[in-house]
Formats: sequence, structure tokens, C-alpha cells
Amino acid sequence: MPELTETEKAYFMQEALKEAEKSLAKEEIPIGCVIVKDGQIIGRGHNAREALGQAIMHAEIMAIQEANQTVGNWRLLEATLFVTIEPCVMCSGAIGLARIPQVIYGAPNQKFGAAGSLYDILTDERLNHRVQVEKGVLQEDCAAIMQTFFRLGREKKKAARRLAREADEKSNLQ
Amino acid sequence: MPELTETEKAYFMQEALKEAEKSLAKEEIPIGCVIVKDGQIIGRGHNAREALGQAIMHAEIMAIQEANQTVGNWRLLEATLFVTIEPCVMCSGAIGLARIPQVIYGAPNQKFGAAGSLYDILTDERLNHRVQVEKGVLQEDCAAIMQTFFRLGREKKKAARRLAREADEKSNLQ
Repeated sequence: MPELTETEKAYFMQEALKEAEKSLAKEEIPIGCVIVKDGQIIGRGHNAREALGQAIMHAEIMAIQEANQTVGNWRLLEATLFVTIEPCVMCSGAIGLARIPQVIYGAPNQKFGAAGSLYDILTDERLNHRVQVEKGVLQEDCAAIMQTFFRLGREKKKAARRLAREADEKSNLQ
Repeated sequence: MPELTETEKAYFMQEALKEAEKSLAKEEIPIGCVIVKDGQIIGRGHNAREALGQAIMHAEIMAIQEANQTVGNWRLLEATLFVTIEPCVMCSGAIGLARIPQVIYGAPNQKFGAAGSLYDILTDERLNHRVQVEKGVLQEDCAAIMQTFFRLGREKKKAARRLAREADEKSNLQ
């Protein structure tokens, strides 16, 4: 199991947050991920479902694909996956399939999280791979970028409604 | 919800079996998948984890990626996913994320199945998407190709052990 200092954990979660920023810039749900092995980032990913039109394109999946490419193997032994938000069912399944031994996430996902919230896929004794899970690293920053995304979404909807109303009023005057 | 006749179900499961044959030819666990919409196959996939060195490259994931490309959208509304073996946790999560309304599978997977065996991801009331699941279409054929794979694997191991023993005996004689 990779042993990381608190500073290293914060550093790599910061890198995952940089990935989440890429999603935010594309108006996607801002979740970012990096996979680390021997102190090096071997895979990076950010949620890009809308931009790529691909249902599976979550941050973790993109990072696992890149890491598999980097090491030339589907097994990511001795790697640590950092992700800003608790992984969903699909991503938790993918983490197990890639044999990643350690996951560190920022903020929980009460609605869809499968690493403790809704399911406990990563530590299920019945599966053939179990993962050490740590949560809460830079939790506030990881949650804050999500809140920014949802606030921007609400403001955008509000502005669209105002524009529609103004256009409506204008056409009534004519 | 797409309505399919028993003949249509058998026809498309046969197509999924053709995909599984592709895995078998590559010495991969032989699982195949097709995704059908309006009577047309919009995505095909077969397990290619070893050949591609990608942990996520299960039959369902490959088929979902292709179907997303075909329709130009991450949502696969009104589609039916046919897969020879019960989907795992990752693939069940992916099916929900792609909003596929119907899954038909051949044989159950007691060890890793997440569509009824180990988990019931597809019908979980807590998730925001529920899937209609039917099992047992061409079940014997879908199970038989898996048994062929595992038998071939055992025979190969046996042959390798015999060759090693013969080489050992030969070097002892010299």
C-alpha cells in the first residue's frame, strides 16, 4: 500500500482540483481525478460527459484509461487514485477492476456515492479486490467548486427566463 | 420501453454471441454485447481487456461508447442492451448513466453480477434511473462459450506444465 504524507495528499488533491477546473470551464459537473504511482502522476481525468457525448466519461474513467496507457497494463498495482468527489457505482467498479489499492477522495456524494454513501463497493468482502479508502482531503475546496457550478447553472437559467420574458413583453407592445 | 418479440430477442442475443466469439479468438473472457434501437444495432462490443490493456474495456462499455458515437448523444433512450453474461458493477453503473431503459442478458454471473446476483444496481429505487431487466435469453449458449474458454485455459496450462516437465527431464539426462 503506498504511504503518503499529508502534504503529498494535499498536493495531489490540488492536482485533481485543477482537473475539475477543466470541467467547470466546459460547463460540465466539475469533478477531477489524478492517479499517482511512485510519486508521479500517471493518469489525469476530468468529467467531460457533455463535451464528448460519452456517458462513461467521468473523471476517474478518463484517468484510469490514461494510466493504463502509461503503464502499458490494465492493472494499476501500487497506485493511488485521488478524486475530488466520492466515486459513483460505475467508477467504483472500474477502480476495483483496475486493481487500484488506494482511493482518496475529497467530498462525499450523498446521492450517488458508492464508496460509503449509497454503496460500499470498494470494501465489499465478496468482491475479489478491496480498496483502502480515505475521505475528506481538501473536502471544502472539492465541495466549493461543485457549489459554484450549480450556482452558475441557476443564474444562467434565471437570465434565460428574464430574456424570454423581456422578448415576450416587447412582442406584446408591438 | 421497446417491445421485442421472442424471435427478435434471440436474434440480437445471437449477435451478442458473435461478439463474444471475437473475445474467445483473442483468448479473452468471451462476453459480447449489442445495443439495439428501432430494430437496428447502434453499438457492438466484446471484452478486450488484455488485448487493449484497458481495465474498463468490457463488452458493455465498448458497445455504449460506440452507441453514444452513433446517436451523437450520451443518452441512449429507447435502446435495449443485449449482453451474454450478467453485467458487473462497473457496467451496471454505466448502463444507468447512459439512461438505457432495458437490459436483456443470457447467463447469470454468481460471482460478479450486479443485475440481481451480487447487487441489484439496475433496479435500485434510490438511483435516478431504473432499468427493466430480463434474463435467460439463449442462456445455455451464453454459458457454454464461457465454459469453452475456461476449459481451453486449463488445457493450455496443462500443456505448458507438460512441456516444462519434459524440458526438465531432458536437461537431467544431459
